[in-house]
Amino acid sequence: MSECEIIDDIGYGLKIIQRQKGFKFGIDAVLLSHFTTVKKQDKIVDLGTGSGIIPLLLYGIHHGDITITGIEIQKVYAEMAQRSVKLNGLEGHIRIINADLKEAPDMLGCENFDVVVTNPPYRKASVGKVSPSDERAIARHELLCSLEDVIKASARLLKYSGRFAMVHLPERLPEIIFLLKKYRLEPKRLRLVYPYSQSPPNLLLIECVKGGKPQLNILPPLIVYRDDGHYTDEILNIYKE
Amino acid sequence: MSECEIIDDIGYGLKIIQRQKGFKFGIDAVLLSHFTTVKKQDKIVDLGTGSGIIPLLLYGIHHGDITITGIEIQKVYAEMAQRSVKLNGLEGHIRIINADLKEAPDMLGCENFDVVVTNPPYRKASVGKVSPSDERAIARHELLCSLEDVIKASARLLKYSGRFAMVHLPERLPEIIFLLKKYRLEPKRLRLVYPYSQSPPNLLLIECVKGGKPQLNILPPLIVYRDDGHYTDEILNIYKE
Repeated sequence: MSECEIIDDIGYGLKIIQRQKGFKFGIDAVLLSHFTTVKKQDKIVDLGTGSGIIPLLLYGIHHGDITITGIEIQKVYAEMAQRSVKLNGLEGHIRIINADLKEAPDMLGCENFDVVVTNPPYRKASVGKVSPSDERAIARHELLCSLEDVIKASARLLKYSGRFAMVHLPERLPEIIFLLKKYRLEPKRLRLVYPYSQSPPNLLLIECVKGGKPQLNILPPLIVYRDDGHYTDEILNIYKE
Repeated sequence: MSECEIIDDIGYGLKIIQRQKGFKFGIDAVLLSHFTTVKKQDKIVDLGTGSGIIPLLLYGIHHGDITITGIEIQKVYAEMAQRSVKLNGLEGHIRIINADLKEAPDMLGCENFDVVVTNPPYRKASVGKVSPSDERAIARHELLCSLEDVIKASARLLKYSGRFAMVHLPERLPEIIFLLKKYRLEPKRLRLVYPYSQSPPNLLLIECVKGGKPQLNILPPLIVYRDDGHYTDEILNIYKE
């Protein structure tokens, strides 16, 4: 293990290797892993898996009987994620592939998966201050893939009636919904994450069904902090696992 | 005034005539009137004005210096709304036209308005139990106009940079956003209305700018009732006017 890496405990008896100065997983990956509907024997793909946090959490939450393929374009993260999989002895359940997510349907087969999950770059390449470190910029900005690339690849990977789950920014909801409908991923569940009960949301969680009938279920607000600054019970329940 | 009508006080010193057994205005019209951004001298259209509640409330909230045209396809409601306008002496500010909203752009002129506001029928003609009384069914179900008809007419009526504001059901958000973007009405503000703080939302308020740049501002949740069953302060403030 290189000097600039650390090993963190993520619950469920699992550990993850992260780069001390690199892109580390946040509450978005944790909330998405808990939000995604997963059934027994599901074949899952995580597009842009980074350190592999979502495959590890999905395995932990649903203890086995699922297989997860993580796709990561950055070699340094893909290799680190592979080492995390080995560290946990999960080679039978999780495989990490160092590849461009746009190539994933051709590599892995179209209409071959039950679930696609993704925590993609949130910001357009042209918007905001681009992170000076390339590898963090790639994780945060649409430098190597656009939102449409992610949604198009997901739609191709999924079986009919398969599920697509994503975490993203509320400000991009119209574009997200427009693209999802363009690729026949029908939004079925939406949850907005609010830091405080009276603040605007700062994250959205959305789940679609490929070819599903239009009828969106917007869930109650997910509030992160109580007014006194402590985590709400719902967040504590997620983190206590 | 016919026997089956009643006169209600709506605040701001204004009154409205409603049919005792007909479609009466609800919290949706009130919330939409408060949500809509209105500036001085705005020329406003209300598509499907019913009893004229939204024009009256907008006039009350913004006291004058705006003109509002209400379009209503049902003659009995259009005539009643006209009598409400006269009852309040607002003929100089509000006109009611008995017409099909699909004809409104040709009748009133394209790109001629600053604001279009609408509380349209919420449900598809084929979904749910259709109200046995025709006039209520027309107000609630897309029997005489579809969501796309409403959005298309609105886009034609609005000036470039004009605003479109609508109240609708959360379950139809994907379809709403898809159609808005199709007609270049860019969603800029979204507010979800939750009966209680931990319930799913039952209404959405959305405001768009014609030709606007994509960037949605999702507002804090609008909660109607406190956990003890009383109105929240925000709702009390709206109703106390």
